[in-house]
Amino acid sequence: MSILCVGSVALDSVETPFGSAERVLGGSAVYFAAAASVLSPVHVVGVVGSDYPLSDLDFLAARGVDLSGIEQKEGKSFFWAGRYEYDLNTRTTLDTQLGVFADFSPKIPESMRDPRYLFLGNIDPALQIDVLDQVGEPEVVACDTMNFWIEGSREKLLELIGRVRILMVNDEEVRQLAGEPNLLKAARWVQERGPEMVVVKKGEHGAILFEANGLFFVPGYPLEDVFDPTGAGDSFAGGFIGQIARDGEVTSPSLRRAMVTGSALGSFACEHFSIDRLKDLTLDAIDDRVQAFQRMTAFESPVGVDSV
Amino acid sequence: MSILCVGSVALDSVETPFGSAERVLGGSAVYFAAAASVLSPVHVVGVVGSDYPLSDLDFLAARGVDLSGIEQKEGKSFFWAGRYEYDLNTRTTLDTQLGVFADFSPKIPESMRDPRYLFLGNIDPALQIDVLDQVGEPEVVACDTMNFWIEGSREKLLELIGRVRILMVNDEEVRQLAGEPNLLKAARWVQERGPEMVVVKKGEHGAILFEANGLFFVPGYPLEDVFDPTGAGDSFAGGFIGQIARDGEVTSPSLRRAMVTGSALGSFACEHFSIDRLKDLTLDAIDDRVQAFQRMTAFESPVGVDSV
Repeated sequence: MSILCVGSVALDSVETPFGSAERVLGGSAVYFAAAASVLSPVHVVGVVGSDYPLSDLDFLAARGVDLSGIEQKEGKSFFWAGRYEYDLNTRTTLDTQLGVFADFSPKIPESMRDPRYLFLGNIDPALQIDVLDQVGEPEVVACDTMNFWIEGSREKLLELIGRVRILMVNDEEVRQLAGEPNLLKAARWVQERGPEMVVVKKGEHGAILFEANGLFFVPGYPLEDVFDPTGAGDSFAGGFIGQIARDGEVTSPSLRRAMVTGSALGSFACEHFSIDRLKDLTLDAIDDRVQAFQRMTAFESPVGVDSV
Repeated sequence: MSILCVGSVALDSVETPFGSAERVLGGSAVYFAAAASVLSPVHVVGVVGSDYPLSDLDFLAARGVDLSGIEQKEGKSFFWAGRYEYDLNTRTTLDTQLGVFADFSPKIPESMRDPRYLFLGNIDPALQIDVLDQVGEPEVVACDTMNFWIEGSREKLLELIGRVRILMVNDEEVRQLAGEPNLLKAARWVQERGPEMVVVKKGEHGAILFEANGLFFVPGYPLEDVFDPTGAGDSFAGGFIGQIARDGEVTSPSLRRAMVTGSALGSFACEHFSIDRLKDLTLDAIDDRVQAFQRMTAFESPVGVDSV
């Protein structure tokens, strides 16, 4: 089997300068799956409450996403409410209700225990480790985390990091984790603790892949209208892992393509509320955007200098 | 003749987390010339006081920089003192003394009045216009500015912008000038007012070239030790214009090379205090760094997708 993703399945209420959306589909696993499934088959493990509009995920099932690992429990679904300010870079959390997510204990169904690619969305590192203990030996394990766990569960987080191949976090998180403002040094600090690679997401400024030897930059895709940045990071992760699965190999060229595809998916996610833009997204639209990245970044060396 | 640059010739006192430097060479024209002169001949117009250690600029003269347009006047040189905080992104100005720069009225020597490339460093827009009135028809006129003029001399600034081919500012400045948080829209706002191109500098996040049709991203070069960011923007401008002059043509490929060379020079400037790293910089070292940018940004399209 292909990609397994474990994370939150949530409802979000979002206010932006351009409008608002009430109790729409959200959560790291939903954004990841909506993005990755355009590129490769995805299996999802998560938990929702009795209030969750599971039928709204039908389009994912129609795209071949295996949702049988989403457990429905008596109670409320994970709910997040937030507001973005004028420039969309400042986000205020207005409400967080964990609901059934508070007792989430991921049970990986028998049929999903041998994934080739595993994405551990931002949940308690103890649970992320628990997932690792339930699966075989994926070729790629990538995980996300956040300041809450960096501050409150540092030991478990370091144990987890020692077992993943790729850490995917934002620039603030990697700096906080390493206690080091310089990104190069912070990434190396992480790499010395297990991960072969670190992907640092920088929002509108793009992302950096730190490999064992060398690094790769991808810019953020320039959008004229950033409508709602919620889920852009998880959509990036979905595009990244989805493209690796699509290529079927983990090489420097495939990782670079994956970074660009990730940035493309992150940008698509910002074009509408929730996962709306990802619903009818096609492989052609993704590849077109990847080509646009090439036009925006390719250059020829100075005259007389050999290209590399 | 080749490049003419008009701007400040200053003394800076700088404190960083890594040390401090007292009354060292600074100013937009000095950084620009130190960077551009590795790539192409440069002529400088500026003013200094009787306290200026002009002999410290001998290395520029030795590199073929024409300093005959630097006027020395009775009085103090332009002096700036500042401190950078821990992460080097926050800068506090501790002191600014305009000295003889307060009455600067650029007089372009007869021999410099027909430049092919003109860089107008960040000075009063009225003076930048005055320079334009003294020269012929340069193939490229690029200008910088800052929040002080955007707020206080908006009308003159817009008059200037109507007469330049390239506006080179940072992201905060272009947003403030256009009154528009979206960079794409802000750049277009500028382009509708004259400039064919806008170069937006984003510090550690690199820079964007907005052309008439299309855009180009270059990342910031990842430095393990950013020693002193003072002058990085002017060094970028020097690398940019210097590379255009070196190529001898203004085409989309040469502009892209210029952007990468600009980012390379901006990074070199950060490696030491003042212009120290630019003093013994060679063309080979620049070209090596440009090649490093290519390794950090090049990627192959997904299988089955034609490259562009």
